[in-house]
Amino acid sequence: MNIKEYVVGKSRLAKKASKKLSYESTLVKNKALLNMSEAILKNRNYIIEENKKDVENARKKGISPSLIDRLMLNDERIEGMAKTLKDTAALPDPIGEVTKMWKRPNGLRIGRTRVPLGVIGIIYEARPNVTVDASALCIKSGNAVILKGGSEAINSNMAIYNVISKAASEAGLEDGSIQLIDITDREAVNVMMKLNEYIDVLIPRGGAGLIKNVVKNSTVPVIETGLGNCHVYVDEDADFKMAEDIIINAKTQRPGVCNAMETLLVHKGIAAQFLPHLCDKLKHIGVEIRGCSITQKIVDGIVPAVEDDWATEYLDLILAVKVVSSIDEAMDHIYKYGTRHSEVIVTNSYANSERFLKEVDAAAVYVNASSRFTDGGQFGFGGEIGISTQKLHARGPMGLNELTTGKYIIYGSGQIRQ
Amino acid sequence: MNIKEYVVGKSRLAKKASKKLSYESTLVKNKALLNMSEAILKNRNYIIEENKKDVENARKKGISPSLIDRLMLNDERIEGMAKTLKDTAALPDPIGEVTKMWKRPNGLRIGRTRVPLGVIGIIYEARPNVTVDASALCIKSGNAVILKGGSEAINSNMAIYNVISKAASEAGLEDGSIQLIDITDREAVNVMMKLNEYIDVLIPRGGAGLIKNVVKNSTVPVIETGLGNCHVYVDEDADFKMAEDIIINAKTQRPGVCNAMETLLVHKGIAAQFLPHLCDKLKHIGVEIRGCSITQKIVDGIVPAVEDDWATEYLDLILAVKVVSSIDEAMDHIYKYGTRHSEVIVTNSYANSERFLKEVDAAAVYVNASSRFTDGGQFGFGGEIGISTQKLHARGPMGLNELTTGKYIIYGSGQIRQ
Repeated sequence: MNIKEYVVGKSRLAKKASKKLSYESTLVKNKALLNMSEAILKNRNYIIEENKKDVENARKKGISPSLIDRLMLNDERIEGMAKTLKDTAALPDPIGEVTKMWKRPNGLRIGRTRVPLGVIGIIYEARPNVTVDASALCIKSGNAVILKGGSEAINSNMAIYNVISKAASEAGLEDGSIQLIDITDREAVNVMMKLNEYIDVLIPRGGAGLIKNVVKNSTVPVIETGLGNCHVYVDEDADFKMAEDIIINAKTQRPGVCNAMETLLVHKGIAAQFLPHLCDKLKHIGVEIRGCSITQKIVDGIVPAVEDDWATEYLDLILAVKVVSSIDEAMDHIYKYGTRHSEVIVTNSYANSERFLKEVDAAAVYVNASSRFTDGGQFGFGGEIGISTQKLHARGPMGLNELTTGKYIIYGSGQIRQ
Repeated sequence: MNIKEYVVGKSRLAKKASKKLSYESTLVKNKALLNMSEAILKNRNYIIEENKKDVENARKKGISPSLIDRLMLNDERIEGMAKTLKDTAALPDPIGEVTKMWKRPNGLRIGRTRVPLGVIGIIYEARPNVTVDASALCIKSGNAVILKGGSEAINSNMAIYNVISKAASEAGLEDGSIQLIDITDREAVNVMMKLNEYIDVLIPRGGAGLIKNVVKNSTVPVIETGLGNCHVYVDEDADFKMAEDIIINAKTQRPGVCNAMETLLVHKGIAAQFLPHLCDKLKHIGVEIRGCSITQKIVDGIVPAVEDDWATEYLDLILAVKVVSSIDEAMDHIYKYGTRHSEVIVTNSYANSERFLKEVDAAAVYVNASSRFTDGGQFGFGGEIGISTQKLHARGPMGLNELTTGKYIIYGSGQIRQ
C-alpha cells in the first residue's frame, strides 16, 4: 500500500464531506450522535473482543501497566463512551450562532457567525475513548474528523470506527465525515502534517514527544495541548488551612494530568510556620518532596531540589518546593519555568491577587482555588477536546466553540465603496 | 555577522520587552503612539532623504514603476503615517477587556480577559508605511513587534525605525518593544520562521510567493493574509442597475487589491438581457473581458476564457465572465476556484440570499453589496493589519482584537475539585 496515497485519499473524502457537514442541520447531527451512542452499546461485545487483541499484544510487548490500563475497555468504559455521545447531542449547536452584529453608517449590516473549521485531524496515543470523544465534538461542531490513533489501540479503534461511522451514516450524516487512518506506520502522520489542502487543523493529544514532533514538523496549523508545569504560590497573607487544602487537591487528587500542580512556592515570611504541617500531611499521602535549601532547613528529611526539578512536569506524587522572598520572585519563577498552563495564588491580599491575575501569563490564572479546575467540564463547556497551551486561536480548555471559526455575513442594499 | 545570532538576539529582546508591555497601561501606550506620530512629522526630511536612497537604488535596478510607487515616500505619505499613529492612540485599548464572565455552581467566578499574543513578527515587502502601521497596532494591543521589511526599503525602514523606537522609549514604553531586522539577507526570514521560543505569531504581508514560503516553512504559527479570487454572482432575480453598480465598483474602484472582484457569474435566465449593457460599460472603463462560450455568443468581441482564468487573481482590469444555470452551479464554481476571501450574491430572492450566506465558505459573504468592503476600516475596526484568509484564530479583516488572545481569570474562595 502506498501510504501517502492512502492518507491523501481519506483526507480528500473528509474534505468533501465537510462541505455539506458545515451547514448540516442540528437535528441530523444530533440524530447521528444518538445513533452512534446506541450502536456503541449494542456492539459492546464486538468492541471489547477487538480491544482484547490490543491488550494481549501490549502485554506480550511488555508495555507498562499504566498504559495497558489506558488502553483497556470494559463495560463501564463502553458506557462512558455512549454517554459522551448522548451528552454531546444535548449540548447547544455552536454553528450558525451570530456572535455579534452591527450596522455601519452606510447601512450595511455586518454580522459574525460561527462556522466549522472544516477538517480536524486528531493524532493521539493509546486511549481508544479519544476515538469517540473527538468524533462527538467534531460532528456536533460541523467538522469532519480524521482520526489517527496509536498503533497499540489499532484493533479497538477500527472496531469503534466501524460501529460509529455506520451509525452516523444511517442517521443521514454525510458519508465520510469520520475517517480513521487504520495503518500503524508513522509515515501516515508525516503525510497528514503536510496536507494543508485537505486538513484545516491538527490537534495532537498525548505525551510531550508526540506534541513536539507535530509542532515542529507540521505545516498544517496545529493546536498545541497539554503540557502543564503548574505552580501554587502561597502568599504571606494566605489562609493556611485554605492553602493546604488547595495544595493537597492540586497535587494529589489526580497527579497524572496536566492541570495538577508540580511546584509549590511559599513566601519566606510564613514558610517556617506553614511548611512543616503541610509537608507532614503530603508525606503521609505518599508525596515525595524536593525542596530548596531553605525548605530543607525548615523541614526534616527533604530531598534537595536541583535545577531540573523546577522545569519538570512530574505527573506523579512528587512536589518541588521553593521559598521565595516576594510575590515578584514567585512570578519571576513562574515566568522562567512555567508552561503557561494554570497558575494559582493563595492570598488574602487584594493588591497581590490583582497583580497575580494581571501579570502572570497563563491560560488560566487562579486566586484561591485549585489548578485542577482547568478543564472543559469544570469550566461548564460540556465537553473538551484538550487544553490549549498556545496563544493562537484557542487558549485553555477547548470546547465546541473552540472548534469553530467565524464568517462575516453582510446584508446590503446596493452599497458600493467610495 | 552571524545572521542567526543577530536575529535570535533581537527576538530575545522583543520577548523580554513583551513581558512588561503585556500589562502596560493604556496611558503609556497612547503617549508612545502620540510621541511616535510627532516624531515622524518632526523628522520627515530625514526619512524622505533616506527613502530617496531606496528609490534611487530601485531605479538603478530597473524595478517596475508600480513597485517604486509603493516604495516612495512624500510629505503626504509621511503625514498619513503620523495620522495612523494618532488614530491608533484614539482607538479603545483591547487589553484587559473581560469578554465574558460566569459563575459556576461551586461558586467559582470564571472570566475571559483579553491579553496580547506576545511577540508578533511581520514579514513584508516594499511598502515602508507597513513599518509604522504594524508598529502602531502591535503597540496598542500590547504586543512587541519584530519588523522584517523588504531589502528595497531598507534605508527607509531603518530611518522610520530609528525615529519611532526612540520616540516610544522616551514616552516610557519598554525598551525593545519594536525591533527591526535591518539586514537584507533572506536567511533572516528563515531564522525567524523557526523561532517558536521567542515569536508567537508571524504575519506575512505581500505577494503570493512570500506568503506561500512562510506558510510552508514556518514552525512559528502563521496568519495567512491576502489572496483573493473574489466572485460576484448575479442571480436570476437581481436588480440590473444594482448588479451593474456593484460589479463596476468591485472590479474597477481599485483593481490591484485582494477584495477586488475577479470573476463574474451570471444566471443564464438573465444573461442575454444583462450582459451586453454591462460589458459595454466595462469595456468603456478599459476592462478586458474573458468569457465562457455562452458569454461569447451573447456579447461581441469577448476574449475566450480558458481554465486558468477561473483560478486567476488578476489584480488588474481584467474580468472573467461565466454564465451558470443555477445558484448551485455558481456556488460550486466558487467552492472550486474561490480563495475563501469575499463572495457576493446580487439577488432579490430571500431564499437564495439565505442559501448563499449559509453555504458559501468565505471570510466575508455579501448580499447586494460590493466585495470592496472587506477591510478593517470599512468594517469599523479602526485599523487593520491584514485580511486573514485562514480559518484558525482570525478570519477576515484583522483589527486590534485579532492581535490578542484570551486568559481565563478565576476568582475562588478555597474551592477544590471533588
